[in-house]
This record gives sequence, structure tokens and C-alpha cells, in this order.
Amino acid sequence: MMATINHQFKLTSRPVGDVRRSDFTYTSQDVPEPADGELIVKVLYISLDPAMRGWMNESRASYIAPVNLGEVMRAGAIGRVIASKNDRFAIGDFVNGMFGVQEYACSNGQGLTKVDPAVAPLPLYLSALGMPGLTAYFGLLDVGKPKAGDTVVVSGAAGAVGALVGQIARIRGARVVGIAGGAEKCRYLVQELGFDAAIDYKNENVSEGLKAHCPNGVDVFFDNVGGDILDAVLARLARGARIVICGAISQYNNTTPVKGPANYLSLLVNRASMTGIMVFDYYPRAREAMVDMAGWIAAGKLKSREDIREGLSHFPEIFSQLFSGENQGKLVLKVASE
Amino acid sequence: MMATINHQFKLTSRPVGDVRRSDFTYTSQDVPEPADGELIVKVLYISLDPAMRGWMNESRASYIAPVNLGEVMRAGAIGRVIASKNDRFAIGDFVNGMFGVQEYACSNGQGLTKVDPAVAPLPLYLSALGMPGLTAYFGLLDVGKPKAGDTVVVSGAAGAVGALVGQIARIRGARVVGIAGGAEKCRYLVQELGFDAAIDYKNENVSEGLKAHCPNGVDVFFDNVGGDILDAVLARLARGARIVICGAISQYNNTTPVKGPANYLSLLVNRASMTGIMVFDYYPRAREAMVDMAGWIAAGKLKSREDIREGLSHFPEIFSQLFSGENQGKLVLKVASE
Repeated sequence: MMATINHQFKLTSRPVGDVRRSDFTYTSQDVPEPADGELIVKVLYISLDPAMRGWMNESRASYIAPVNLGEVMRAGAIGRVIASKNDRFAIGDFVNGMFGVQEYACSNGQGLTKVDPAVAPLPLYLSALGMPGLTAYFGLLDVGKPKAGDTVVVSGAAGAVGALVGQIARIRGARVVGIAGGAEKCRYLVQELGFDAAIDYKNENVSEGLKAHCPNGVDVFFDNVGGDILDAVLARLARGARIVICGAISQYNNTTPVKGPANYLSLLVNRASMTGIMVFDYYPRAREAMVDMAGWIAAGKLKSREDIREGLSHFPEIFSQLFSGENQGKLVLKVASE
Repeated sequence: MMATINHQFKLTSRPVGDVRRSDFTYTSQDVPEPADGELIVKVLYISLDPAMRGWMNESRASYIAPVNLGEVMRAGAIGRVIASKNDRFAIGDFVNGMFGVQEYACSNGQGLTKVDPAVAPLPLYLSALGMPGLTAYFGLLDVGKPKAGDTVVVSGAAGAVGALVGQIARIRGARVVGIAGGAEKCRYLVQELGFDAAIDYKNENVSEGLKAHCPNGVDVFFDNVGGDILDAVLARLARGARIVICGAISQYNNTTPVKGPANYLSLLVNRASMTGIMVFDYYPRAREAMVDMAGWIAAGKLKSREDIREGLSHFPEIFSQLFSGENQGKLVLKVASE
């Protein structure tokens, strides 16, 4: 029945610094027949996330095993079931799972969730209604705990998670200052997403910007970036501030050691905390977030923006844009039409 | 009535790196008569604390104003009231307050608490029953939140706060590993204070020691030291670990920028937190700690060790020993006999 070709990106060497096409092998093989209990998914949209860069590194004490050399590169994706010997899934179902950077995936159904394109466009399930949405929602509300009137700062503010964090904070009555790279992203944050202010780290002094926009200090900082930006915010904390460490995209491609936050003693002076989060921990509570997020989107209070690029074969180059900041919103690789 | 001479150490230049005698002027003046509402305290014991080093620096965003040039160096102390025009205090009362590095202090009574030498020896009110005790008790129990069976690591473990932290953690059923400088301090921690293990950072590799003594990772880290030791512990965190930032004595005399913890992304991987504490915040709850601490001391479960040196005139040299680690327990400067 099948005899279809599956193109795949396999990780074949561990990137040093920036990811290069030569770190992968682009291969093709026949799509297999599903065995009993298995299903075959045609991949439609692949999620491109900064965390994938970490999965390419050799194992250290990390939260998830690295991708082994020779394996298909791991990635979350949305697809459509095209063959099934699994009772839970039928041909035509749309599903969300770790299908990898390839055109077709074979799954035993574990970890898959069904999604409904009648409720929301499919890419939204990789964005506000997916991992970035859960990350923003629980990281901000459970760990950052903003109160009405608090000043919330978010770095990587025009990124998939950051843009949601800022909007959720606004909905909860906080003042929101975004840090992003470039005038256009900053304009977007303020004019289209309703941020109270934005700081363009590529063209402005972040410390000066924080001083201007956070006269009473920073109550909550949601950090996606690390490096100098984290240090600048540490120097502006309000008493009892909460820092949520979600990522450190400025450090992921480093070939030198990570830059630790030299101003960390501001935590002491300000009785502040810095807490790391992992979205997986919140999966059991995903429904809470989904209900709120979908409601806010329907009410026009929250915008989700996906930056959809086409063509599996361009994966390495498109992925790299996450680190140069060329994406506008959640970066999604479209592999096939629905 | 008075005409007594008051010797004082005034801060007259801001130390660069290590504190030197030349940063102070040793002066004398007559003890004043108390005005209405005031009292005169004869200083008996002065508390020497690492935090004093920070007070000598020019104002930055800090939790307390710096000592101005020309002012008596700020310090907590225990003294005896020798003259009073304040209804709350009578001649002969023993009091705890910020009396400074001098022989006599004039006070309006604000911030003073009475202490009872019949309940505990006076130096203990600068140690287990004073600021170090409150710091250890609330920092560990309120922020570190050790559970029975947890592995608790404390740096500066033979210091005033560290030794109490380890003992309180033991009382609460945790496994305790201390990090201290020198074989004698480590022996003391294990053999006299009942720590489960100690790592001698001057003669051992701290990372190897942590690996050996914390096979399941570190659940709570109470950090008095910062620098490389903080980084080593970050690399050994257990899932959900709590780091209490109490101080960073390794960094206080730096003439170069503070070394930030390069391994801070371990907070993310391990969903861990790092929280700064200030003992002042817990003063309203001091009684809770005092009752427990005094009870544990009376029951022989907790030892408080004071390292009492004599002679106000030796203040700069004795203070410096805090940073070379020459003190054995809480460093106290005895100024006069009771």
C-alpha cells in the first residue's frame, strides 16, 4: 500500500557552535508498514525550538537524552494519521507528537495527543496551544506569580514563548516591558501586542532602557536569553523579585563556557529568587492552560504569531535563524499541506 | 559623672580589596552625657561579620546604607547600660544593638533588645542566639526547606552561620555535608558537630568530594561562599533543589568583578531555585528561632562556638581573619569585661 519515500534529517555529527548543514545527513527511505499497535503519521508542521540545540550535544546531566548520532533529529510536530494498527488512532486523525525532522513517522501512539483543526489552525498547536503556550502560562503564573501592578520584564520577547508571556502578564494586570532585537520587533510588541514598552537590545543600552521603563524595579523577569541581558535585569530587581529561567538562547551556541550572571548577589540584596522551569512538568495540568489560552485568543486578548517556512530540505538553515533572531514569532517548518 | 575616654575606629577610606588598618582612624573622645531619652552603653563584645565588608563600600543598590567616611565603623555588639535617661533601660541592663566599633555608645534606645546573661553567656547573643542563629534557622528552614533524608550541603560550614545550618539540618533529619577550609575544621564538623561528611576545599577537589558524598545529588545548598564552590554544587543538584544565597565571602574582597555562577543553567535542567535571604526580614519572627535554638542547646543537640579575641585596638587585623578563614566559629571581639 505504501511504497512512499520518507525524507529525513539525521544528526551525524555534534555541532560545535552554530549548527551547520554538514552536521546532518539528508536521507530517504521507504515508509514502513505499521506493525500491530503502530500508526504512520504524515508530518505536516515541525516545531523548531531553541531547546533542540541542546539535544544535539553529547550527554551531560540534562533533562532529556541527547539525540544519538545517526538518529533522526528529534522535534515536536503535527501530522495526520495515514495508516493505523492502533485502536486509539484512526486514519485522518490529526496528532501532535515528537515525530522528528522527517516526512513520515512511525509511532506506537505513546505521547501522542489528538488535535482538532476545527478548533484552531494546526500550527497554533505548536505555538500558543502547544509547548510554548504551556511554558509561558505556567512559567509566568506558577513561578513568576505576577500581581496586578507588578512590572514584568521578558527577554526574547518577540519569540514564541516571550510574546505569550508578555500578553498573559498584561491580561493579569501587570506592566510589561519586552526586550527584543530590532526596531520592528519592538514596534510589534508595543503596537500590536500591547506591551507597555520595549527595549531593542541590538540598538539600545539595555541597562538604560530598564532604568527608564522600570523606575520601581523589576518584580518578575522571565528570561529566555541569559548572558548580559540577565545581568542587566539582575541589577534592576525590586525587593522580592522572581526570575524565571526558561532558557538562555544567547549561550546555546557558545564554544566557550557559559557566562554566569555576575550580578547574582542582587538576589541576596533584594531577597529575590531565580527558578528554572521545564514545561514537561506541567503536562498533567495542560488543560488549565489550554482553556485559558483558547479563551483569550477567542476574546481577542491574546495573539499567537507563527512564522511558517516551507520545505523540509531547508531545515538546517531555517533552524539557525532562531539564534540570529530572524524569526517573527513561533518558527514552524511546513513539510506538507493538510 | 563621666569624663571617660571612648576609643573608636572610624572608617576614613574605602578599602580596595583586603581591609587594612590604614582604612581606619583609631581615635578617642570623651563619652558624652546622655540627653533626655538617651542611654550610654559600655560595649563588651563586638560581633565581627563578613557583611561589614560590604558596608565599607561606597553606596550601590544595597540593603543598607554604607558607613560614611569619618563615621564610627558599624557593628553589632553587646553592652551594659551605664547611664540612662530612657525609661525603657536602666543602669545595669545588658543590651544588644548596633553599637559600632568603639568602647562606649550613645543610643536613643531604638533597635535595642535586652539580653539576659543568666539565660546564656553574653557572646551567645551574637552567635546562635543572635544574627547568625536567625540567619541559619530561617534561611535553612524557611527557604531551604529540607525534608528528612534530604542531602543538605553548606559552604563556610565551620563559620558562625554554617556550623548552625548543618546542625539544624541534622536535627531535622537531613544528611549534611559541610565544605570548609582545612583538615582541622573538617574534623571538627564531622567529629564534634555530627556532620555526615566534610570536604576540605583547600586540600580536596570539591567536585569530586560532592560526587562521593552526595551520590543522589544535593537537595539543599546553603551558600555562604560563592565563586567556584557555588559552581561545583550547581553541577550536582538534585531535581527540585533549593539554593539559599546567604553570602559570598569568596567575592567580598574582590577588586575584579564578581564571578557569576557559570553553571546556573543547572537550575533549569533540575527545576531548581536560588533565593537570596536577609536576616532582618525575620526579626519579627525571632522568638520562634530563639525558642528552638535555646532548647536544642539546652538538650545538647546544638553547639555554638565563639572565637573570642581581646582588644579593641586589634580590630582591623582580627576582622581580616574572617576572610582568610582563621576564625574557629563566630568571631567576637571582646572589648571589656562584664
